[in-house]
Amino acid sequence: MKHGGDLTEAIAHYGGAPEMWLDLSTGINPWPWPIPQLPNDVWTRLPSRTDDAALIAAARYAYRVPDDVAIAIAPGTQSLIQWLPRLANPGTVAIAGPTYSEHAIAWQEAGHNAIAFEPTNALPHAVRHAVVVNPNNPDGRVIDRATLIRIARETRARGGWLVIDEAFADLDPDISAVALCRELPVILLRSFGKFFGLAGLRLGFAIASPKIAEAIGAALGPWPCSGPALAIGRAALLDAPWAGRTRTALKRQAEKLDAVLAGAGWSIAGGTTLFRLARHPEARLLHATLARNHIWCRSFDWADDLLRFGLPSDDAGLDRLAKALQSRP
Amino acid sequence: MKHGGDLTEAIAHYGGAPEMWLDLSTGINPWPWPIPQLPNDVWTRLPSRTDDAALIAAARYAYRVPDDVAIAIAPGTQSLIQWLPRLANPGTVAIAGPTYSEHAIAWQEAGHNAIAFEPTNALPHAVRHAVVVNPNNPDGRVIDRATLIRIARETRARGGWLVIDEAFADLDPDISAVALCRELPVILLRSFGKFFGLAGLRLGFAIASPKIAEAIGAALGPWPCSGPALAIGRAALLDAPWAGRTRTALKRQAEKLDAVLAGAGWSIAGGTTLFRLARHPEARLLHATLARNHIWCRSFDWADDLLRFGLPSDDAGLDRLAKALQSRP
Repeated sequence: MKHGGDLTEAIAHYGGAPEMWLDLSTGINPWPWPIPQLPNDVWTRLPSRTDDAALIAAARYAYRVPDDVAIAIAPGTQSLIQWLPRLANPGTVAIAGPTYSEHAIAWQEAGHNAIAFEPTNALPHAVRHAVVVNPNNPDGRVIDRATLIRIARETRARGGWLVIDEAFADLDPDISAVALCRELPVILLRSFGKFFGLAGLRLGFAIASPKIAEAIGAALGPWPCSGPALAIGRAALLDAPWAGRTRTALKRQAEKLDAVLAGAGWSIAGGTTLFRLARHPEARLLHATLARNHIWCRSFDWADDLLRFGLPSDDAGLDRLAKALQSRP
Repeated sequence: MKHGGDLTEAIAHYGGAPEMWLDLSTGINPWPWPIPQLPNDVWTRLPSRTDDAALIAAARYAYRVPDDVAIAIAPGTQSLIQWLPRLANPGTVAIAGPTYSEHAIAWQEAGHNAIAFEPTNALPHAVRHAVVVNPNNPDGRVIDRATLIRIARETRARGGWLVIDEAFADLDPDISAVALCRELPVILLRSFGKFFGLAGLRLGFAIASPKIAEAIGAALGPWPCSGPALAIGRAALLDAPWAGRTRTALKRQAEKLDAVLAGAGWSIAGGTTLFRLARHPEARLLHATLARNHIWCRSFDWADDLLRFGLPSDDAGLDRLAKALQSRP
């Protein structure tokens, strides 16, 4: 299973209708920002430059982006992950792993050599670019600021970029390395859909120096984002009270999920408050057991003893998971 | 004015609130396909491969795509226009012009040399790829099938592609060159938003051989289209009765628009039933006159005597245009 959030494979193997499944395979907030009634023209007319500018202003506020750092908008950060390797100078990329697999796929597809690296060590000599997911998916590891600055300086000296995928940084905004974009060739990726629980909307941002952001914007071309994404993204990113309440609620729910997992003999190996990485010697077997109970979580081809669990939206989901974890294979 | 459909510039120069403007600068159907109530999960969850497959099946039906020809989905054909030059072999592209300007911009941005060509002549020797918009925007010219086959064979002999942008082919489906994709390196672009009047949705298709479509799909990566675009696109593309009624209604409205223009001393120079290209010796001056009346249409930097008019949605709009065309500068 390469990705979470797609029941197609689960249903093909284990049957059932989509609504029978408890889908814990994603890192998406189960309590979405409430979408208001949308004006009809977000559907009918082409988005205008005024719409783009309003969304960018909201993102600047939410992500605390300084005035001298720029923002490019995109239909999901995945589309930025696809484009960045095409715009980067030729050269090997080092990716701190294990992590979200699409980074390596996209750099390789664009003709770069991709290797794994350990961020606390010096960047290998043959490497020009680096990619880190911070906090990391699936283990939640956070790389400290001094290390990021060191890596960014190493990539700068080699004409490369440091891509920092902050898909899960909304949960703890102080993690964001946005200040680094000023002086260093750092590109931050911010995902709208995960924290706001609106993954179907397809909205993401690249934050970088004006020169880099302009190159990204030119590559994506005009009208990259849908009218609904522009309208909803703008309003949601300005809703600081909702964001504050949501951070608190997610933290509480993650603690409840940890309790369920611990109660079933799992140890918590990491995660963020949108997903938990848990360890059990029989994890692989239990993934199948859960699936037969129509509960879908993420397994990894690089670890037999780990599963990743997204947050159930309510106590019924927590109870259902708890019961299924006790059932015999 | 590079594009239609963006009142930002109009308002900056001529004032007024967006709702005061009669925007005739686009080629978008003013009577959109009626969007039903959407299930909540199109917003919240990541689109699945099942969703993608259902949309592709609907596009296959609407665009009459044979089984051995493939379809790649995208958040608007503009995103495909951005990607194709990055995936094409190096070499000069010939673009039948004047036409939609973003093709040349995208090929040049990707490092190709772009030249203009006349499709009825043999493709110039130095050229590898060709792009035609068929029917063409803004003049509505339709290139016949034999000519398209000849150009496609010329590009094939040189390891190139023929891109046929069929953004306005919905109006007369028999125009589509979809059968050519079987044996020739032809990539068709189909735009959802124009004919269905839902340009804010951002949805488009590339139709090509399985090998080419797969390369396009890999470049765009997973989840290229939003949940709402997948749900709405699927239902709308299967609505053949609506499409039939709409073709008739657009034809009638285009005739009414022609009558208004002719009554004001303009001659019709071409167009499709979504926009009319009209000629007047004082076109440039009248563009400003209309703008002072908060009517926005398209002018061209390559012709002083031409303007392009989209369809007003009702008789009030036609009357307003008729009156403004009579007013003194």
